[in-house]
Amino acid sequence: MRRNMLIAQSGGPTVAINASLSGAVKRAMKHPEIDQIWGGRNGLEGILNEQFVDLRQKLNSQEAFRQLESTPAMALGSCRYKLPEEPGSVYEKLRGIFSRYEIGYFFYIGGNDSMDTILKLSQSFGSVGDDVKCVGIPKTIDNDLPCTDHTPGFGSAARYIATSVAEIACDSAVYNVPSVTIVEIMGRNAGWLTAASVLARRGGCSAPHMICLPEVPFQLEKFLKRLGHLQPQVQNPIIAVSEGVRFAEGGYVSSQGEQVDAFGHRTLAGVGKYLEQLVRDNLGCKVRSIELNVLQRSASHLYSATDIGEACRIGAEAVSFAVQGKTGVMATFERVSDHPYLLAYKSADIRLIANREKTVPLEWIDVDRYDVKEALTQYLSPLICDENGCGIPVYFSL
Amino acid sequence: MRRNMLIAQSGGPTVAINASLSGAVKRAMKHPEIDQIWGGRNGLEGILNEQFVDLRQKLNSQEAFRQLESTPAMALGSCRYKLPEEPGSVYEKLRGIFSRYEIGYFFYIGGNDSMDTILKLSQSFGSVGDDVKCVGIPKTIDNDLPCTDHTPGFGSAARYIATSVAEIACDSAVYNVPSVTIVEIMGRNAGWLTAASVLARRGGCSAPHMICLPEVPFQLEKFLKRLGHLQPQVQNPIIAVSEGVRFAEGGYVSSQGEQVDAFGHRTLAGVGKYLEQLVRDNLGCKVRSIELNVLQRSASHLYSATDIGEACRIGAEAVSFAVQGKTGVMATFERVSDHPYLLAYKSADIRLIANREKTVPLEWIDVDRYDVKEALTQYLSPLICDENGCGIPVYFSL
Repeated sequence: MRRNMLIAQSGGPTVAINASLSGAVKRAMKHPEIDQIWGGRNGLEGILNEQFVDLRQKLNSQEAFRQLESTPAMALGSCRYKLPEEPGSVYEKLRGIFSRYEIGYFFYIGGNDSMDTILKLSQSFGSVGDDVKCVGIPKTIDNDLPCTDHTPGFGSAARYIATSVAEIACDSAVYNVPSVTIVEIMGRNAGWLTAASVLARRGGCSAPHMICLPEVPFQLEKFLKRLGHLQPQVQNPIIAVSEGVRFAEGGYVSSQGEQVDAFGHRTLAGVGKYLEQLVRDNLGCKVRSIELNVLQRSASHLYSATDIGEACRIGAEAVSFAVQGKTGVMATFERVSDHPYLLAYKSADIRLIANREKTVPLEWIDVDRYDVKEALTQYLSPLICDENGCGIPVYFSL
Repeated sequence: MRRNMLIAQSGGPTVAINASLSGAVKRAMKHPEIDQIWGGRNGLEGILNEQFVDLRQKLNSQEAFRQLESTPAMALGSCRYKLPEEPGSVYEKLRGIFSRYEIGYFFYIGGNDSMDTILKLSQSFGSVGDDVKCVGIPKTIDNDLPCTDHTPGFGSAARYIATSVAEIACDSAVYNVPSVTIVEIMGRNAGWLTAASVLARRGGCSAPHMICLPEVPFQLEKFLKRLGHLQPQVQNPIIAVSEGVRFAEGGYVSSQGEQVDAFGHRTLAGVGKYLEQLVRDNLGCKVRSIELNVLQRSASHLYSATDIGEACRIGAEAVSFAVQGKTGVMATFERVSDHPYLLAYKSADIRLIANREKTVPLEWIDVDRYDVKEALTQYLSPLICDENGCGIPVYFSL
């Protein structure tokens, strides 16, 4: 019976992924079935090179755990590595490594691609009868993993988006001049993060005034018409737009705004810059676009306490699931109720999750008004809270 | 004797300018010499249209003051308006308005251009014997106002920069791949804000690895050589660069990276994008640039308590200076000591301040190593603190 555990992180950073690592290791230390607790550096790439760290040694105090939980990005490093579809030498190598290190429990913290790793490894180990429990721990700011109410990392990113939009709204309103501000937000195919901008209104501001999600085919004339309609009443409209918005035929809007720089290189302009020019040309008003950049996923200073707490807990539950004998699953959140906000921790078959995306349901989107419906706001609200309240500041207004 | 007060805000937003408004109004309410407390909307532009609000009415509770102090940008709105050099109808109009509203005390919260307004108005009123005390209250994230140790708004922006750089450093280090990250920071002619990135090291991270300030003429080969020298030891160097860096002959580096977009429009690329391409072409490694955008000046969620407290206090002292009879001055900070950190509140002749800039002293810059000296770090440190400490998180590291 193999008694050692291996855990690693994978994919893009969030502010909560280290909290999941912390929760998992803490829980592992409580299970007598688990001896060694190895961390794999840089995900599967590091594991293939046996780049392991002894986590019992590295996390040897309350302070170390606490610091880990408030550190953004990946303490163990990450990789973007996808296992091949066909059996072959990579799998043999991994089985050899897992055997030598007597790994009986494997955890991969990541998004859809990482869940693909859990799927393939659990199948590979299963096919040769190696007793390795493989459990995925969810992570993504995009909130697009199926079978779970939401994902760790999303709540903090949502809080960052909503707070930033509220602050940008204040910044945009200082001059007595009509102006449009376009805020470009991460999220290629799923608009959850862009939709979270609606929470800026929790503090009393009216922004965002338009929300453009990838789930709704983008129509230029309709967009300009809606904006034109808003403008007399709203002097400084704020538009939240997902980087992944697409035209009806499927092409990304961002690819329309190709630029040729001084070196003759072509680069994607970004949907924000493209819409900025469109608005300038068609509506003739002052307009600027703001790309929210990597701080959306790494701004740990604006974490959601709910998010961090849940991230810790789901890491812990994943470990217990594995000790109970589960494999080929991902630990999940199941929302029991909204008021009070209550979660149950479950697990779901990895085959329902790997390589799949969960997008914003169309019935939660108000397509004509470029807005989201109350049901979505209700869904989002508890995810961004902290000890002090709803997480969005209330500003002074004359 | 005129007994009414008029206060307004001007120039670009910061997170502290409303705190100065709050401090000034609170202090005015304690001076029996002051009757009406008018706020001018949208700075001088609104004043010229007599767009006044009764601040005794609007700020009628502790909660209102508290909310005002935590609101970014300008509660009274702003403008970018410069008074003409020659006497004329604008001045006559203003003297008429001040007379009708019996304004005896005028306060303008802003940067260099706003101090120009204080200079011109105090001279104008003085020349005709109107008894109006004109006092400037400093404000800018650039920290470039002369005669004052630092400026309100700077400490919070500095905290934002340092925290963001620390988070970006974590984000940049996740993959086991060499990469360069260029962080473009606000500040046209003075590098104080970019220099503040050095405070990221307070939390233990080694970033930023290079700092490029406008005070030092930019040399391409020297820049690339230094970066190339760093790279073997530092896998993921972070470079903090001011948007205002210039070549020795004076041209802005950002104007080199002109782009022609899909519509045939020329736009400034931004120094970050330009350097990104340069590094990609010359060093052949993975590189990205991040523009920190308007959140540098509006991210009130990451305020410095020291900054907000000082902003309140300097607004209050400005009011008392005016009641004491001072005019044609700006309220200033004078640093009495570093340990403990102590300030005195003074005033300085506006003619030494208006339209002038204070840049980073060359003796505080380590030109060859693209770094800043310890004296600058010592100067900056107390400005970003809050109740809980030095203001920069300490992260977990293996």
